[in-house]
Amino acid sequence: MLLEAIYHQPKRNWAYAYDQDTIHLRLRAKKNDLTEVHALTGDKYAWDATKALVPLTKFTSDSMFDYFEGEVKPPYHRLKYSFLLKNGDEQIWMTETDFQEEEPDDPGRMFQFPYIHAGAVFTPPAWVKDAVFYQIFPERFANGNPDISPEKVEQWGGEPTPFNFFGGDLQGVIDHLDYISDLGINAIYFTPIFEATTNHKYDTEDYLRVDRHFGDADTVKRLVELCHARGIRVLLDAVFNHSGKTFAPFVDVQKNGEQSKYKDWFHVHEYPLDVKDGIPTYETFGFEAHMPKLNTENAEVKAYLLEVAEYWIKEVGADGWRLDVADEVDDAFWRDFRRVVKAANPDAYILGEVWNESSSWLQGDQFDASMNYPFTDAVNAFFVKNTMHAEQFANSIGRQLSRYPLQASEVAFNLLDSHDTTRLLTLCEGDQRKMKLAALFQFSYMGAPCIYYGDEIGMDGEHDPGCRKCMEWDEAKQDRELFDFYQKLISLRHAHPALRAEGTVRFLQARHDGSQLVFERQNEEERILVLFNRSEETAIVELEAGDEEWTELFGGNHRTAKEDGVLAIELPAYGYAVLSTSLT
Amino acid sequence: MLLEAIYHQPKRNWAYAYDQDTIHLRLRAKKNDLTEVHALTGDKYAWDATKALVPLTKFTSDSMFDYFEGEVKPPYHRLKYSFLLKNGDEQIWMTETDFQEEEPDDPGRMFQFPYIHAGAVFTPPAWVKDAVFYQIFPERFANGNPDISPEKVEQWGGEPTPFNFFGGDLQGVIDHLDYISDLGINAIYFTPIFEATTNHKYDTEDYLRVDRHFGDADTVKRLVELCHARGIRVLLDAVFNHSGKTFAPFVDVQKNGEQSKYKDWFHVHEYPLDVKDGIPTYETFGFEAHMPKLNTENAEVKAYLLEVAEYWIKEVGADGWRLDVADEVDDAFWRDFRRVVKAANPDAYILGEVWNESSSWLQGDQFDASMNYPFTDAVNAFFVKNTMHAEQFANSIGRQLSRYPLQASEVAFNLLDSHDTTRLLTLCEGDQRKMKLAALFQFSYMGAPCIYYGDEIGMDGEHDPGCRKCMEWDEAKQDRELFDFYQKLISLRHAHPALRAEGTVRFLQARHDGSQLVFERQNEEERILVLFNRSEETAIVELEAGDEEWTELFGGNHRTAKEDGVLAIELPAYGYAVLSTSLT
Repeated sequence: MLLEAIYHQPKRNWAYAYDQDTIHLRLRAKKNDLTEVHALTGDKYAWDATKALVPLTKFTSDSMFDYFEGEVKPPYHRLKYSFLLKNGDEQIWMTETDFQEEEPDDPGRMFQFPYIHAGAVFTPPAWVKDAVFYQIFPERFANGNPDISPEKVEQWGGEPTPFNFFGGDLQGVIDHLDYISDLGINAIYFTPIFEATTNHKYDTEDYLRVDRHFGDADTVKRLVELCHARGIRVLLDAVFNHSGKTFAPFVDVQKNGEQSKYKDWFHVHEYPLDVKDGIPTYETFGFEAHMPKLNTENAEVKAYLLEVAEYWIKEVGADGWRLDVADEVDDAFWRDFRRVVKAANPDAYILGEVWNESSSWLQGDQFDASMNYPFTDAVNAFFVKNTMHAEQFANSIGRQLSRYPLQASEVAFNLLDSHDTTRLLTLCEGDQRKMKLAALFQFSYMGAPCIYYGDEIGMDGEHDPGCRKCMEWDEAKQDRELFDFYQKLISLRHAHPALRAEGTVRFLQARHDGSQLVFERQNEEERILVLFNRSEETAIVELEAGDEEWTELFGGNHRTAKEDGVLAIELPAYGYAVLSTSLT
Repeated sequence: MLLEAIYHQPKRNWAYAYDQDTIHLRLRAKKNDLTEVHALTGDKYAWDATKALVPLTKFTSDSMFDYFEGEVKPPYHRLKYSFLLKNGDEQIWMTETDFQEEEPDDPGRMFQFPYIHAGAVFTPPAWVKDAVFYQIFPERFANGNPDISPEKVEQWGGEPTPFNFFGGDLQGVIDHLDYISDLGINAIYFTPIFEATTNHKYDTEDYLRVDRHFGDADTVKRLVELCHARGIRVLLDAVFNHSGKTFAPFVDVQKNGEQSKYKDWFHVHEYPLDVKDGIPTYETFGFEAHMPKLNTENAEVKAYLLEVAEYWIKEVGADGWRLDVADEVDDAFWRDFRRVVKAANPDAYILGEVWNESSSWLQGDQFDASMNYPFTDAVNAFFVKNTMHAEQFANSIGRQLSRYPLQASEVAFNLLDSHDTTRLLTLCEGDQRKMKLAALFQFSYMGAPCIYYGDEIGMDGEHDPGCRKCMEWDEAKQDRELFDFYQKLISLRHAHPALRAEGTVRFLQARHDGSQLVFERQNEEERILVLFNRSEETAIVELEAGDEEWTELFGGNHRTAKEDGVLAIELPAYGYAVLSTSLT
């Protein structure tokens, strides 16, 4: 047993309340090093009466480690625990203090989960488990009201630059709700819609006003109502890390310098405000002079932004907030933000923009999810860029699963591209076969998938501004076959709960240097296998299939043979299949 | 290189702001496995311009691991980083995503400390770095006002039981401040002083009233003023996990059951309140029916208790709170508690009762320190019970150092006993030689040492109620030699900053199966060696001493010889020595 590889710590993703009565315990060990793991658990004030040995089972793995997980329901909401680790005949106990040969009997030296507090249980909104998101960049989705288009609006469909405008607005979205519903979408994430000077609106001028070129509060209210009537949730974008240069308090500081009553709303190093050698004399997003960083630790700023957060939830009935540059804002701010937002709408989804591992924000007191770019990276590396083989991919996804409490993985925001990246089809160099494999994985995995507007009809584009082209509404120019593919994929997900939060995740085949991947989603009703052949060669995937009857749910472009309980599935180049067997 | 042993995660004790400009990065590796560790650091928005390789040095070790630490001052308060690990010629890079051979160049895949927020920097009060605490259990310290003693008060010095009273009060403490000052104490921690029925007062009846048998608010105010005039800080005990049975809201629930307007102040499972088979039908501390658990997630309860916390700080000028059963109260409560208390007194010390590893509370948003019982356990195991040898002890202390941000270790509350444990002298089975070694370690180590009243004059006692005897005020019955020892020890600490927060900690000798320990404290001015011989045999400790002149600061019961740069110190059974050399 490699003791140096064993890891556990209280809290975080290692010991967390899954609900008000249940604690999940996790332990990491060197890959294939442990055959059995148990937790010795009990209440510290009634150890002998409550003592119980609880099994942990391997729930995921990565390239170096296995991760074990078990569930405990402590009768008095308090838990003390140690671990029993076995490798065949060899065994050792692990307490908080040390490893030891003898069974520990002093709860004082064990790990603890002191008490399950109902209000501290991380409870993301349940609807996200079943959500399929569509991301809309409003300036480029549809122009529904030319009367409010910017003065210098360009012809719809023209070449996007960082600075031009095409007149997209919220009425445009309203006009196309049929399209969105038809695709199967039940949640929309809008990039910012508030008054700002740029086309992307990440430089807010007025947080309490809808951008004049997008519509007004009534338009948003109508949009949300129409969405809700269709069962579509609406997520807005809160840009609270920084404001725009035209935000009144910042204008005041620019004008009045140290005399400004807003001077503590920002982080100013030197007056008058200036940019020296490309570096602003005040803190900004990146080094963007037009995006001054807000001092979210200042009580007035905090009160103002929390009012904004509450206002739009209450005023228009928004279903949550996506938080721009969330990781650069202080934790205390987000904790209060969560209280305010959840008080206004307990079902609100709070989605932080964090590109890194983000477990510290996913403990129940800050976000419900983060933009899952580590997922994006892994999917791209395996299905699109061929820079990972199947085993590496499974390990990467496995590691991601190990990082977060289960309830966070259930509502992860799994995107393959966005307004901040190259479009998926362009990453695929136009090869839709790759794109489809990537999307199939995205839609058959745990978490909420998100489609960036237009991907479903074959839109391409490099990194910003290329990825922010006008939506193509001319059906003749839309790739309808691709649309059908996405539509079916979404409908597959909606039809099978095992593909969503309640299904367990397991990689059945993911070979070293391999290009074929088989992964399993399973709930009590159904076992689903998803097969991928990420290669230019036909491949035969063999599966131990027992006596079950297998139904094809999706795919079709493959041949199946069954002999002696082994199912042999021939997948063409970039072929895939989704097979299901009933467990009831 | 054993990659499975390498550990780092953002935040916690692994990447934390030490001050507004400085981030400490730490990395764990298998013991003696790495010869060099560097962090590749930079700003993500200006990577090439800010990129720098920063060395990490080994700052502590335990039985399995070495812990490396380095300091970074990111120019724009944002930090991205990877690690370079070396073992001789072998080297590998570690990013957030993986280990790799090539130097990483994509900050996107690196670890991050997104932004240093001034208000989020963990800044415990500076005075604690120099504090020597004295813990007083008021009912047993001194009876200064017999008029307010309980009716059934017993003769001072009688046998303590869980239920009897001896009339100790706050005037008694005032009367003996000369004694306390004379010992060298500059901070007192009082167990609870608020209205309650028991002798220990952990069953509060009225949080806003001083116990009638202890005095009143004016007595406390006078006490605090007199303490402050002597440079003594005062820490009060907040019992917020549970109230007493006679707390008015709980009386109301007992009387009115579900109709009580206070019913949500507690966690009631069944009405009427009852105890069935020893288990109350409402949540309690342990299973103590007279200590109903408060619902600190309830807004009214929270507001009430926070008012209490603020009131005593403002009303009497208390210097902080010790928090009873702190780990069973929710984090959100403590975060607000910290805001309120620090607003009332930015220098307040917040000390949580947590017997376990407590890093999750020591991040800057909850406590400044926890009752350091893991320290107690290690010191007892090595110096008192002989259940650890020197190497195990050094490893145990080393591990504890690795667990917390440096600023937490600087103000740790290092106790060797308390009202909740057997007294130190009793643990030593009366052997003062052991007691002195333990105390010498306590007073020469980083963190604030605490003496439990009477230990310094030879009081003994088993676990509660034995450890709660009346203080011995008859000098003839006090062990004055022991008092002198403690007095000198305290004065040694006060005289040498290297023994306090600013000194680094290093174990120079701590052999496997060994009974001798040499450890070093060093600041810019001075290098201090503390030598211990925990054995019945005389021992000669040899040290590489170079050309330095060594002065004896404390001890004396030993012989020294120096030859060829080696200092040989002969320590008698349970002997010790404190040697110093100037570095200026």
